[in-house]
Amino acid sequence: MNSIFSEIDDIFHSNSVAIYGVSRRGGLGNVLLQGFIDQDFPNIFIVNPTITESNVEIMGIPVYSDLESIGEPVDLAICSTHPKYVKDIIIECGQYGVKAVVIFSAGFGEKDEEGKKAANELLKIAQKYQMRLIGPNCMGFYCPKTGLSFFPALPIESGPLGFISQSGSIANILGFSAMLKGIHFSKSISYGNAIDLGFNDFLEYLGDDPDTKLIACYMEGVKDGRRFINLVKKIKKPIIIWKVGVTPAGEKAAQSHTGSLCGDNKLWEIVFDQYGVMRVYNLEEMMSMIQAFINPIPVQNRRVAIISGPGGPAVSSADACEMNDLKLAELTDESKKELQKFIPEFGSSMSNPIDLSLQSTFDPILEKNAFEIVGRDPNVDMMLIYLTMLTPRYKDLIKLQEEISKPIAIACAIDSTVSSDCFSKYIKRSFIHIRAKKVPKIINKMNQNGISMHPNEQLAAKALHNIFQYYNNSKKSNF
Amino acid sequence: MNSIFSEIDDIFHSNSVAIYGVSRRGGLGNVLLQGFIDQDFPNIFIVNPTITESNVEIMGIPVYSDLESIGEPVDLAICSTHPKYVKDIIIECGQYGVKAVVIFSAGFGEKDEEGKKAANELLKIAQKYQMRLIGPNCMGFYCPKTGLSFFPALPIESGPLGFISQSGSIANILGFSAMLKGIHFSKSISYGNAIDLGFNDFLEYLGDDPDTKLIACYMEGVKDGRRFINLVKKIKKPIIIWKVGVTPAGEKAAQSHTGSLCGDNKLWEIVFDQYGVMRVYNLEEMMSMIQAFINPIPVQNRRVAIISGPGGPAVSSADACEMNDLKLAELTDESKKELQKFIPEFGSSMSNPIDLSLQSTFDPILEKNAFEIVGRDPNVDMMLIYLTMLTPRYKDLIKLQEEISKPIAIACAIDSTVSSDCFSKYIKRSFIHIRAKKVPKIINKMNQNGISMHPNEQLAAKALHNIFQYYNNSKKSNF
Repeated sequence: MNSIFSEIDDIFHSNSVAIYGVSRRGGLGNVLLQGFIDQDFPNIFIVNPTITESNVEIMGIPVYSDLESIGEPVDLAICSTHPKYVKDIIIECGQYGVKAVVIFSAGFGEKDEEGKKAANELLKIAQKYQMRLIGPNCMGFYCPKTGLSFFPALPIESGPLGFISQSGSIANILGFSAMLKGIHFSKSISYGNAIDLGFNDFLEYLGDDPDTKLIACYMEGVKDGRRFINLVKKIKKPIIIWKVGVTPAGEKAAQSHTGSLCGDNKLWEIVFDQYGVMRVYNLEEMMSMIQAFINPIPVQNRRVAIISGPGGPAVSSADACEMNDLKLAELTDESKKELQKFIPEFGSSMSNPIDLSLQSTFDPILEKNAFEIVGRDPNVDMMLIYLTMLTPRYKDLIKLQEEISKPIAIACAIDSTVSSDCFSKYIKRSFIHIRAKKVPKIINKMNQNGISMHPNEQLAAKALHNIFQYYNNSKKSNF
Repeated sequence: MNSIFSEIDDIFHSNSVAIYGVSRRGGLGNVLLQGFIDQDFPNIFIVNPTITESNVEIMGIPVYSDLESIGEPVDLAICSTHPKYVKDIIIECGQYGVKAVVIFSAGFGEKDEEGKKAANELLKIAQKYQMRLIGPNCMGFYCPKTGLSFFPALPIESGPLGFISQSGSIANILGFSAMLKGIHFSKSISYGNAIDLGFNDFLEYLGDDPDTKLIACYMEGVKDGRRFINLVKKIKKPIIIWKVGVTPAGEKAAQSHTGSLCGDNKLWEIVFDQYGVMRVYNLEEMMSMIQAFINPIPVQNRRVAIISGPGGPAVSSADACEMNDLKLAELTDESKKELQKFIPEFGSSMSNPIDLSLQSTFDPILEKNAFEIVGRDPNVDMMLIYLTMLTPRYKDLIKLQEEISKPIAIACAIDSTVSSDCFSKYIKRSFIHIRAKKVPKIINKMNQNGISMHPNEQLAAKALHNIFQYYNNSKKSNF
């Protein structure tokens, strides 16, 4: 492990944190503080020079007028004050031996030339003290294992997902969207303007981090393209990137958001393609692809079987597979014969895509039998299943996976987390046997078994395509 | 109004229905029957020749061994039996003076050559009696105004949406998906193999139907391309089409689904473009575009203002606008000055896209002020708003619309219908003030006011693009 890894790893293993910008009247500093409290972080101190009385507490946490008065080592500082106070805070932190400072405060390079100068000054001070900076204009770190956090009520459970985001709000939203799908994080990093530690540093870190199994990123621009290329070439984990600023309008917006230069979209496209980086275009796609790579199942061929109760989506799913460079599997005669025993004679189809007909809505055993027969077919490498909504039949699929171990992507017409309150009594009685409350755990279990859930057939097909590519791209073949 | 219109309109105004295929042990016929019961359709009769006793009822509906024994006029028959009985039923219906038969039964043209022949025979018999056929292999009609239905528990409320679907299951799924968004139907038609009445007939009908304000379609193929072109040229209502079978694999699947020939995708593309047909690729996009055209607001220019609390999605939304041929509006100096009074100095952006910063999460008035200032700006033609999730601030938008009347598309990171049970207590406390149960009504109200909700920024931008095109495409300019 190199020095960047251990430096960042040290920050993630901070044992004490000092938060600047917490006040009696509340505000964003207090929100950040609540995040640490919710994660039960071991040693939290508030530093507020305007509070000079002793023994003051805010939200149950002791307040000190400066670091010196704490009298104990402080590993990490969080700075959430007006930007004009940041310089003095950085100096104080450097003098006190703080290892790193997360600068939540904004108003630097993304603002104007003066802001850029001020940011450079901060960097010089930090370097003098061999202290690392994260931000400015960022949320910092969330790491449930060690208790770091950037927002209240994030899950305390750890998971395989490492996330790097230039945008703080996306780190937040992804935290909550992931919660709904039962997806948990090893680390989530919002790094903002990146005057010191930046995208490449964190990518390198997560590439080596044993707790991180897959890496997802929201990116506006990177500073050192060559290093980025070397990293994606080297890292042997799935990398999913939501790269924005791909049009002039987007690039301009990125400029005023985090002061980023986005670069030529075509160049990015080539690099992503060449090194097997999976590209997504919005949060929904990001959630879709993350699920597919929580525990992807190795696959050597691209022959997909489509199973659908609804016949219409079966046709659309066939289109989606072909558009994603997948092949429709030709079922063995044996499988077809087996299917004939269960599938209704009319309004159905035994050839791929397998259309179970309306009957499947009322006869759950039909689905179970079809899953098993098709899943076991040696001509089938992967399955795309279209469901109206998730039913308890997911259990059959998980059980079947123990035996067949093939990538499965489910497209669901109606999101499983939708409240049953929104439905009429009939639908509640006929379809939803799964309470929304239980859905995150169920999706998590499916993901662990190589089954992912998608909002439409195109994303389900894209997920299967990406899994196939991941295991069959020569640049990434040594997994 | 021509004869096709009045023929189909007569069917929609049927006053009595006879259902074949209902049995004591249950099955799909009983499901169809329940649909009619739930809609409180006036005169329902069950015909089952195996039940010869008198005064028998199934599910509270009287059973007759044949039409003759009913002794009252029957306008419409629904045939849900094994295909081998269909011919005799058609003959009986013709002789009794039934106006139309919905053939739910499958096993005809989509099955094999023999099936095709059998279907032709049915058509000849029907023509002899001047009776119209819908199907085979279809669900038939849903029309809450007159009580026709094809599935239990569909809403009894009428709405502006006319839907035509080759696939029965998609008509069903759309019925329930629309329910979740508070969208209601004038008529929904599933026409299957279309041996008699087909896509063009229903398109022509809905084009003239005063209860239908917009037309959405799921289509595998049409039989008379020229007539289709003439219709889309003529019809002065928004038309949204989900055309499948666009790849060889999809075309093959469509063939075995409804016996359709899909035709060259490029030709379709040209026709759709030329005549302003809006194309969608899955159910999710369909729901997105329908919402945008429930009550689209006329617009002459394509200058969009993006408002986002989260900064990251603001950048991605700017990309999405540019990719959809929209322009980012340049706010007036006045608006910028006004915004400066409310928007936090740091971590935000006053130039379009307007980034309200993390502060907006905790300060709802910030959003309200920004909506008003930006919405009133004369340089702004349309608004794209990115929200983490729907909050009661939607009321401000509806109120603002009375004054500004501009198309507004909202992209929501977390679907509003998600059960709050899936969230942690903190999110429930901080974000969700809207109960999922209330969401369908709220979305309906927004749609009525030209505000649509989308699952991602690309679909929000596509919706705005389509609204602009709809009012500015010369072929469709005379609205």
